[in-house]
Amino acid sequence: MKIETTKIELSTKPDEIYNITDNIDRFISKIDAVEGTVLIFAVGSTCGITTIEFEPGLRRDFPEMLNKIAPRGHYHHDATWGDGNGHSHLRSSLIGTSLTIPVIDGKLATGTWQQVVFCEFDVRPRQRKIVLQFSGK
Amino acid sequence: MKIETTKIELSTKPDEIYNITDNIDRFISKIDAVEGTVLIFAVGSTCGITTIEFEPGLRRDFPEMLNKIAPRGHYHHDATWGDGNGHSHLRSSLIGTSLTIPVIDGKLATGTWQQVVFCEFDVRPRQRKIVLQFSGK
Amino acid sequence: MKIETTKIELSTKPDEIYNITDNIDRFISKIDAVEGTVLIFAVGSTCGITTIEFEPGLRRDFPEMLNKIAPRGHYHHDATWGDGNGHSHLRSSLIGTSLTIPVIDGKLATGTWQQVVFCEFDVRPRQRKIVLQFSGK
Repeated sequence: MKIETTKIELSTKPDEIYNITDNIDRFISKIDAVEGTVLIFAVGSTCGITTIEFEPGLRRDFPEMLNKIAPRGHYHHDATWGDGNGHSHLRSSLIGTSLTIPVIDGKLATGTWQQVVFCEFDVRPRQRKIVLQFSGK
Repeated sequence: MKIETTKIELSTKPDEIYNITDNIDRFISKIDAVEGTVLIFAVGSTCGITTIEFEPGLRRDFPEMLNKIAPRGHYHHDATWGDGNGHSHLRSSLIGTSLTIPVIDGKLATGTWQQVVFCEFDVRPRQRKIVLQFSGK
Repeated sequence: MKIETTKIELSTKPDEIYNITDNIDRFISKIDAVEGTVLIFAVGSTCGITTIEFEPGLRRDFPEMLNKIAPRGHYHHDATWGDGNGHSHLRSSLIGTSLTIPVIDGKLATGTWQQVVFCEFDVRPRQRKIVLQFSGK
C-alpha cells in the first residue's frame, strides 16, 4: 500500500470547463499505480470537479443549466465582499470540489465518454491548484 | 490493509432508480471488511450515484425535480451526436457518479432510511457497470 | 498505513448550515495524520455535506437557491409518510452526504475560503451523527 500526492496547476477563464483526464492518466502511469483510488480535489470555493462527456455542445449546455439554477445577479454574499461572484460560490457548493475514481489494472475505471473536468465558476481569470492523490498498490 | 474490487451489472430502464444497497452489503460481508471505505463508482456519462430514502414517493419526486432543472428538450449536445440525451448528461454531471461510504465494525455507516441508488438518466435501456472498491482492513 | 474513525454529534435546527472544519482539523491533529484522505460522511437522508465560504451572506444564499430547486411544498413522498419533508430528501440527494478531502503535510488541502459544512435540510431539530474517517499515514 502506498500514497502518492501531486498537484496540477491551471490558468483558467470564467465559465470555462477543463478536461483534466490526461493529467490524471499520466499521474497514475508515472507512479505505477495498479489498484486503488485516485482522489481529485479542487482547492477553492468558486470552482468544481465533476465528470462529463467533454464535447463542444455540453461545454455550453452545462454552464447554461447552472445559469438557470444560480444566475449571475445580486446575492447576500455581495453584502459581505462585494465581489459579484455569489453565483460562483453557489455553483461550487452544488457541484462539489471532490471526486474519487477507482483505478483497476493500472487504469481509471471511467467510461469512454466520461471525462474528468475542472469547472471555473468565478468571474475573473484564476490560477488554480488541483490535488491528485492515489491510495493503493 | 487490503483493497478488494468487484463490479455490479445492471440492466436499466430510462428514468429509473435502483437500490444497490444490498449489493454493497453482500460485497462487504463476502470480503470480511471490518473498517475502511467503500467506493461506489458508476461507469458512464448519463447516469448517477447518490443516496435517497428508497420509497415509491421519492422515486417519482427525484426525477420530477431533475426534470425542472434539466428538462428533456433540445440542447447544444444534440448538434454533436443527435441522440437526444443532453439532459441525461447534465443530470449526471450534477448528481455525480462517485460515492464513498465508511465501513465501521463490518457495516456500512449509512442511516436506516439512507439507501444507495444507481440512477439511470439515459433515454433508452442500458447495460450498466458499477465498480465497488473496498480499501481498509 | 492506518485507519482512524470517529463521530461528531450535532444538535441542529432546520435550514441551518454548520461549519465543521475545526472538528476535522482537530481530528487530524489528534491522530497525527500526515498524508492521506479524510472522509466526511453524514448519516441521514435529509441532510448534506459540502464545501462553502462560511460567511453570513452565503449562509442565506445557499438555502435560497435550494428553495428554488426543491421548494417546500407537496411531494409524492408525503403520500408515504406524511412528514412534510419531501424537499429535505431531494436536497440531500442533490447535494450529497459524502465528501473526501486530501491531507497533505498534516493539514487539510482545502482553500482559505473553503469550509466544510453540514447542512440540515429537515423541517425539525435533529440530533445528527457525522463520521470522520482517515486513511493514510
